[in-house]
Amino acid sequence: MTAVATAGGLQRLRDVLGEVADLERAAAVLGWDQETNMPPGGVEDRANQLATLGRLAHERFTSSEVAELLDSAAAEVATLPAESDEASLVRVTRRDFEKAVKVPADLVAEMARASTTARPVWLEARARSQWSLFAEAMQVTVDLSRRLAEALGYEERPYDALIGLTEPGLTTARVESLFGQIKGAVVPLVRAIDGHSDRIDYSVLSRPADEQRQLELSREIIGHLGYDFERGRQDLSAHPFCISFGPGDVRVTTRTGPTLGDSSLLSSVHEAGHAMYEQGVPRSLDRTPLWGGASPGVHESQSRLWENMVGRSRPFCAWVFRRLRDAFPRSLEDVDLNTFWRALNAVRPSYIRVDADEVTYNLHIMLRFEIEKDLLDGRLAVADVPGAWGTGVREYLGLKPPGDREGPLQDIHWTFGLGTFIGYSLGNLISAQLMTAAVSDLPELDARFEAGDFSPLLAWLREHVHRHGRKFTPDELVERATGSPIAAGQWIGYVHEKFGALYGL
Amino acid sequence: MTAVATAGGLQRLRDVLGEVADLERAAAVLGWDQETNMPPGGVEDRANQLATLGRLAHERFTSSEVAELLDSAAAEVATLPAESDEASLVRVTRRDFEKAVKVPADLVAEMARASTTARPVWLEARARSQWSLFAEAMQVTVDLSRRLAEALGYEERPYDALIGLTEPGLTTARVESLFGQIKGAVVPLVRAIDGHSDRIDYSVLSRPADEQRQLELSREIIGHLGYDFERGRQDLSAHPFCISFGPGDVRVTTRTGPTLGDSSLLSSVHEAGHAMYEQGVPRSLDRTPLWGGASPGVHESQSRLWENMVGRSRPFCAWVFRRLRDAFPRSLEDVDLNTFWRALNAVRPSYIRVDADEVTYNLHIMLRFEIEKDLLDGRLAVADVPGAWGTGVREYLGLKPPGDREGPLQDIHWTFGLGTFIGYSLGNLISAQLMTAAVSDLPELDARFEAGDFSPLLAWLREHVHRHGRKFTPDELVERATGSPIAAGQWIGYVHEKFGALYGL
Repeated sequence: MTAVATAGGLQRLRDVLGEVADLERAAAVLGWDQETNMPPGGVEDRANQLATLGRLAHERFTSSEVAELLDSAAAEVATLPAESDEASLVRVTRRDFEKAVKVPADLVAEMARASTTARPVWLEARARSQWSLFAEAMQVTVDLSRRLAEALGYEERPYDALIGLTEPGLTTARVESLFGQIKGAVVPLVRAIDGHSDRIDYSVLSRPADEQRQLELSREIIGHLGYDFERGRQDLSAHPFCISFGPGDVRVTTRTGPTLGDSSLLSSVHEAGHAMYEQGVPRSLDRTPLWGGASPGVHESQSRLWENMVGRSRPFCAWVFRRLRDAFPRSLEDVDLNTFWRALNAVRPSYIRVDADEVTYNLHIMLRFEIEKDLLDGRLAVADVPGAWGTGVREYLGLKPPGDREGPLQDIHWTFGLGTFIGYSLGNLISAQLMTAAVSDLPELDARFEAGDFSPLLAWLREHVHRHGRKFTPDELVERATGSPIAAGQWIGYVHEKFGALYGL
Repeated sequence: MTAVATAGGLQRLRDVLGEVADLERAAAVLGWDQETNMPPGGVEDRANQLATLGRLAHERFTSSEVAELLDSAAAEVATLPAESDEASLVRVTRRDFEKAVKVPADLVAEMARASTTARPVWLEARARSQWSLFAEAMQVTVDLSRRLAEALGYEERPYDALIGLTEPGLTTARVESLFGQIKGAVVPLVRAIDGHSDRIDYSVLSRPADEQRQLELSREIIGHLGYDFERGRQDLSAHPFCISFGPGDVRVTTRTGPTLGDSSLLSSVHEAGHAMYEQGVPRSLDRTPLWGGASPGVHESQSRLWENMVGRSRPFCAWVFRRLRDAFPRSLEDVDLNTFWRALNAVRPSYIRVDADEVTYNLHIMLRFEIEKDLLDGRLAVADVPGAWGTGVREYLGLKPPGDREGPLQDIHWTFGLGTFIGYSLGNLISAQLMTAAVSDLPELDARFEAGDFSPLLAWLREHVHRHGRKFTPDELVERATGSPIAAGQWIGYVHEKFGALYGL
C-alpha cells in the first residue's frame, strides 16, 4: 500500500512539474514574441499575460501539494544512486522548492514591478548620461536585493544568498578568490599589451560587410557547428539572445552591423553555443527542473567556448576565412588569414562590456561584482557608484573615467537586480577548463577544426556537460568533466599563452 | 457589510476572468507562433504547453469560486440597466459559465485529442482523394459532436446545442428558414447567370502579379482602411487568419499567389475586417468574456462586409485601381476599370468553397449544413457523405459530382467538430443588413469610397457593432444596429440587384 502511494508520488510530482514547465515555457514564447514580433501597442496586454503566467507557475510550484509529493517521492528514490534521473529530480526540485517558498509572493511581484518601472527610467538616464536620474530606481534594486537575500538566508554575507540562487554551491568568498587570481594575472597583462598595441593591425574590421550576407553566412556556420534548425530558428533582435521552449524549439537571435567588426558571425556562434547546450539536454529530463542548463555560469561556458576557444582560434579562422572571403570579397581580397585572425583577437581596453575582448572582459565583470557587493553590504552609496566605477576603470583598464552612459548605465541588468553578472566570468573560466579537458581527450581537435569538423567537440560536450541538464551543481559538473571544481588557472594560462604569443611578450 | 462583500464580488470576478483571459491569450500567442514561426521539432513541446494552458483556463473558469462570485456579483448589478458593462458582464459570463460546466473535462480533452489525431488522417485522405480513409475519424467527430450536444442539452434537435454554443439565441429551425430563402432566391439566379456566363471576361485575373508587390500593396490598403499596425502586424501563413492577444495586439496573416486572381489584396481586406472589429472593442471590456466579437457569424459579417460590400464594390475598385496599375503595370496597362471590376465579380460555380464568388458562397455552406444536420440526426451515414455531396453540388451549383478531394475533403473543419460552417453564411447575411443600415445613415458613402475615405464607414461600425464587444447576442446586436434581427432579405436583394445588373438579367 505504501509502495503504491509513493510510486504515485513521483509520477504525480512529474505531472505538476510538467505543468509548471509548460507555464514557464509559454511565458518564454511570449517573451520571444515581444522581442521579435510584437507591435508597440501590445505592451500592456503582454504585461498582464506574463504576470498571470508567472504567478500561476510560482503558486503551483510552491504549493503544499508539491511539498507532500516531494516527501513521498523522496522515500521512493531513497535507494537509487544520486546521479540517477529520479534521485536527481527529487534533490534538485527540493533545492529549488526550498528557495522558492522562502521568497514571499509579494516580494516576487514587487521585484517584477520594480523591474518594469526601472526599465524606462534607465533608458532615459542612459540617453541623457546621468546616473542621478537612475539613482532612485537603483536604490530600489539594492533594497529589493537585500530583502531577497534576507528572505533566502545566508551564513556569512548577503551576497552569498544571491550567488546561491543561480550558482548553487558557490559563495562570495570563492568568487572573490577567483577574481583575485584573475586580477593578479590579467591587470599586468593588459598593461604589457598596452605597451605593444601597435603589434596588431585591426583596421580590417572597419571594412564594410553586406548585412544580408552576414545573416546567411551566420546561419550556414552555426548549422555547420551543430545548431539544429529543425529544432530552432534564428531571428533579428536589438540584443542577441537564446531562448528555449523545450527540447524541440530552442531559438537564437542575432544582430548585424555595417562592418566586418560588428558582423553577426561571432555573436551568432555565441548564441548557438547556448542553444546547442539546450538542444543537447535529453528528452528524458524534459518538463522537469532537471531540464536546461546547470547554471548561468555553466551556460555561459558553452557560449564562450564556441565563441572564443573555437571561434577566435586560428584553426577555426583557417576554415571560415574562405567562406568570409566568398561572402565579402571586396573587403577581404587583399587580406591574408593571419592578418584577419590577429585582428579578431586584438586586445583593446574599452568602456563597453559587450564589446570587450577576451583578455579585458573579466575585468568588466569584476568591477561590477565589487560594486554590487559594496552596495549590498552598505559600504557604497548609490550616489557614489560613478566614482567607484571611474576608479575601477582606471585601475583595471588603464582608461580615464567615462561618462555615465559608457559607465554604470551601459547595462540593463541593474533594472532586474544584483548578482547577475558573475555568470559571465564563471563561464569564461569554465570554458577554459572544459576546452583543456576536451583537447586532452581529443588531441587532434585543431586539425579537425581546420577541416571544418566540429562534431567531435560537440559530442564531447554532449557527453560531459549537456546530457546532465541541471542534475549537478556547477562545481559537481565541472569536476566530473575536468577532474577539478571551478578554478581560474586554466583560463589564466590560456590568455597568457595566446595573447603573449600574439603580442610577442 | 453585505454591500461591501458584493462590491468585492464583482471585482474578484473580474480578477479571475482576467486570469482566464490571460491564459487564453497566451495560448493564442502560442498558436500564432506555431503557424508562422515554430520549427518542425517544436510540435510535441507546443502540444504540451497548449494542453496545460487550455486545461488551466477551463479549470479556473468552471471553478466553484466563479459560481459563487457570479451570485454575489449578480446581486451587485441587479439595479443596473441590462446594457451596462457590469450587468452585461454578469449575464454573459453566466451564460458562458453554464455552458462550460455542462461539458465534462474528459470530453473537452477527448475532443482536443481527436482533433489532433484527425488532422494528419485528413491530410492523407485529401492527398489521396479518398473519403473512406477519413471515414473513421469523421465518425469520431460525429460521435463527439453528439456527446457534446447531449452534454449541453437542447429542446428540439441536437444541432440546436451546437448552434447555441457559438451563436446564442439561434436555432436549427431558424437557420433552416434562412437557408430556405437563400436557396429559393439564389439557385435560380445561378442558373440564370450560367446561361450568360460569357457576359463577363475574367481572363485578366490570370495575368501575373509580383508577390512582393502584392504584400506591400495589401499592407498599404488595409492600413488605409483603418487597420492599426501600431496594434497589429501582417505575416504570411498557409491559410490566412486573424488572431488577437488583446486590444493592443490583433494580428492578421495572408498568402500570395502568382496571378492577379490569387493576389493577397482581398484576402487581406477580409482579415483586416476581422481585425478592425477586435481593434474596435473598448479597453473597458478588456480581459473579460465581453471582450472580442459577438459570435463567429457577427465576426464574419465584418470580414465579408469589407471584402465584398466594400472591396468588390465599384467605388472601392475605382479608388484602388490606380494603385493596382502602379503595382502591376504590365498586367493592367491595357485594362480599364470597368473590365477589372467586372472580372472581380464574375460568378463561377466551382467545387471549392474558399474560391467561391459572392453568389454561390452560401450554397457551399448550405450543403455542409444539411449534411451535418443529417449526420447528427442519424439520417445520413458517414460512408454516404460523398454521395450526398455530389447530389447537393449538382442541384445547387449545376456541377457534376467532384472527386473527394474537391468534395467533402476540401475543408479542415470536420477534424474539429460539426457546426462551425454556418457562421460564414450568417456573416454574409448580416453584412448586407449592416451595409444597408450604414448607407441609410451615410448616403454619401459611395462617393467617400471613391475618394479613398473609409473612415465614416469604420466609425459607423465602431459605433453600432464594435464597441459592444460580446455584450449582446447576434440577434440583439443586429437588431440594435439595423432595426431587425438576422434576416436573409437584404442579402438576397443585394445579390439580385448587383449581379442582375452585372449580367444584364
